[in-house]
Amino acid sequence: MKKLSHMSPSKIVLLIIDGVGGLPHPKTGKTELEAAEKPNLDQIAKESVCGLIDPVSPGITPGSAPGHLAIFGYDPIKYNIGRGIIEALGIDLELKPRDIAARGNFCTIDSRGIITDRRAGRISTEKNAELCQLLNKIAIDGAEILVTPVKEHRFVLILRGEGLSPELTDSDPQQVGLAPKKIEALVPQAQRTAEIANEFVSQARTCLKNETLANMVLMRGFSQRPDIPTIPEIYKLKPAAIAVYPMYRGLARLVGMQILPAGGSITDQLESLHHHYKDYDFFFIHFKATDSRGEDGDFEAKVRAIEEVDDALPNLLKLNPDVLIVTADHSTPATLAMHSWHSVPFMLRSRWCRPDDVTEFSERACLAGGMGRFPAVDIMPLAMANALKLDKFGA
Amino acid sequence: MKKLSHMSPSKIVLLIIDGVGGLPHPKTGKTELEAAEKPNLDQIAKESVCGLIDPVSPGITPGSAPGHLAIFGYDPIKYNIGRGIIEALGIDLELKPRDIAARGNFCTIDSRGIITDRRAGRISTEKNAELCQLLNKIAIDGAEILVTPVKEHRFVLILRGEGLSPELTDSDPQQVGLAPKKIEALVPQAQRTAEIANEFVSQARTCLKNETLANMVLMRGFSQRPDIPTIPEIYKLKPAAIAVYPMYRGLARLVGMQILPAGGSITDQLESLHHHYKDYDFFFIHFKATDSRGEDGDFEAKVRAIEEVDDALPNLLKLNPDVLIVTADHSTPATLAMHSWHSVPFMLRSRWCRPDDVTEFSERACLAGGMGRFPAVDIMPLAMANALKLDKFGA
Repeated sequence: MKKLSHMSPSKIVLLIIDGVGGLPHPKTGKTELEAAEKPNLDQIAKESVCGLIDPVSPGITPGSAPGHLAIFGYDPIKYNIGRGIIEALGIDLELKPRDIAARGNFCTIDSRGIITDRRAGRISTEKNAELCQLLNKIAIDGAEILVTPVKEHRFVLILRGEGLSPELTDSDPQQVGLAPKKIEALVPQAQRTAEIANEFVSQARTCLKNETLANMVLMRGFSQRPDIPTIPEIYKLKPAAIAVYPMYRGLARLVGMQILPAGGSITDQLESLHHHYKDYDFFFIHFKATDSRGEDGDFEAKVRAIEEVDDALPNLLKLNPDVLIVTADHSTPATLAMHSWHSVPFMLRSRWCRPDDVTEFSERACLAGGMGRFPAVDIMPLAMANALKLDKFGA
Repeated sequence: MKKLSHMSPSKIVLLIIDGVGGLPHPKTGKTELEAAEKPNLDQIAKESVCGLIDPVSPGITPGSAPGHLAIFGYDPIKYNIGRGIIEALGIDLELKPRDIAARGNFCTIDSRGIITDRRAGRISTEKNAELCQLLNKIAIDGAEILVTPVKEHRFVLILRGEGLSPELTDSDPQQVGLAPKKIEALVPQAQRTAEIANEFVSQARTCLKNETLANMVLMRGFSQRPDIPTIPEIYKLKPAAIAVYPMYRGLARLVGMQILPAGGSITDQLESLHHHYKDYDFFFIHFKATDSRGEDGDFEAKVRAIEEVDDALPNLLKLNPDVLIVTADHSTPATLAMHSWHSVPFMLRSRWCRPDDVTEFSERACLAGGMGRFPAVDIMPLAMANALKLDKFGA
């Protein structure tokens, strides 16, 4: 790719409607996409080559990071980036190369220490900041402790010091009804770091014991910043990201994208796109609500989130980008109320795509698309080809 | 494959309609294949298992060499063969193992040295031969210089001598409006070869300065003969090629095919097929005009070239080969006027194929074929299987 790609004025817009793929509602037999009124998405489908992507591989449910990395062209197995690092990058934390970052949740536990809410009722970001101040008072020999609030119940823990290792298990059991797990070293050199991390959790529990909204922490994704070639290096693009949630900004920054300011709604995000359109040639726009409502198990709300994107699209279409891609990092069926392994609808519109007979943006319709079913890592080469930014391979 | 394949009397015919895949005409919405009257191709489609191939991978535009190598069963990334070698093989040049071959174009430059026509108006092959005689007078210390005409504006340069390296950049910038580039060494050991190559270009310019039709040369694809396992070795086939253009004959020879004589038309090629049918069990027939007319951007002429193949097919069908495959090495949409990344229609007819519902040989129709979308390197195993020339894998 590095050898084949060249700069050109053409512009690529990648719109991620997070978790947009779904499953049929048991009553209607229609998926969220099939139930939504979405004339603009359907019109784009008519002008596009469509298909279904497997973000990682069939049967594998991707987290947000591998889902996005695959779409950005990185083998998500090879570049398995820790959740802690992504969360830290997303809030503009200045990371030193050997820092260990972990994602934290404020949660609630009962008197027996059993988790009753993994997200502490999604406490306010203000309350979160207050609790983080408490945790920042924790001192442990052998590592500097930095706790930074993110949003709602989320925070980042940084362990900074000599000889630390990220090879640790999570304390978060990922379900209620269990106690937080002890953090274990995955390699002998991580033993001391495991002790430090467990000591942090123990002191945090003591700090929070009189709090009513959140009385415990759950830690996961201990990790260090990886060495990853950037999108400008590989594709000679000048990429920018318009994402509201920190994690997606963090991922975008990791692969070399400039982070553009944007308000919280998709309308605001597309205003930001207009404002910066001339300055970049690749735009990653991330819409979150479809995934959140899917995870809530709220079918109707997910349908409305899809319609919210659709309503905003005319403002994007006005720019008529040379390549427009609409897809997602994974499916989040409301009936499952979680990320899933199901393939994800994909469409690519360009002057040079070979349109197929698909007339609707949905799981079933995209199955008949010209791309068939394909791995998400092929999206970037396709985007580059359709933008006429790739040279011929071989004589 | 080596372990599974066995000899048998069944015969495989692989018909490559170079660059046959296309894009819809803006006025009619029909691709070249959809616009063509081609009853024979459509009849074969009805009796075949159809699909769409990706010669290299989605988004990658293949040159002719990787496109053909993939169809012949070779990973086109692993076996990336230099253009110079392919061009040299195509004109029956006797190459020594360490010879450096490069593809040359006669071109025109203006008084400032800027390229005005990369192909010098496709000068006649006779004029080419005359100019090559001039260039063969060039003498440079450290290497024997051999210049051989190919066709129209194309020639082959051989550098023969001790300690030469093919790790050189091209002088051909691949576009008009620029000056030819200096040839650079890609590794330190190629430094002397780079100097020799630049000296050749410099002397060539002097030789040609009074010529009106072509006054400069462009060099690309410096390369040595690779070590590649042949089709007889891998598949135990006795393969033959019926190709008019040198490059495709060169590729065929590289993978161990016998080159059969044939006149210039597809009718002549199929006569040659009849004549030699009993002597081989695998035939590669290469039809060029579809690609040439596509590269010319001449939609109607490409449609006529498809119809020309179709008209000639009854003579092939008379032989009723055990396996008949029709596909191409890449798409060449007339609207793009160049090779492209779009997947390529494919069909395989045999007594043992599982036919699908496809009734037409076209991009859209083949999308619904039984093979779906698949990598071109899978074609040879499929051909062998349908010819009942492959053993079961494993117990």
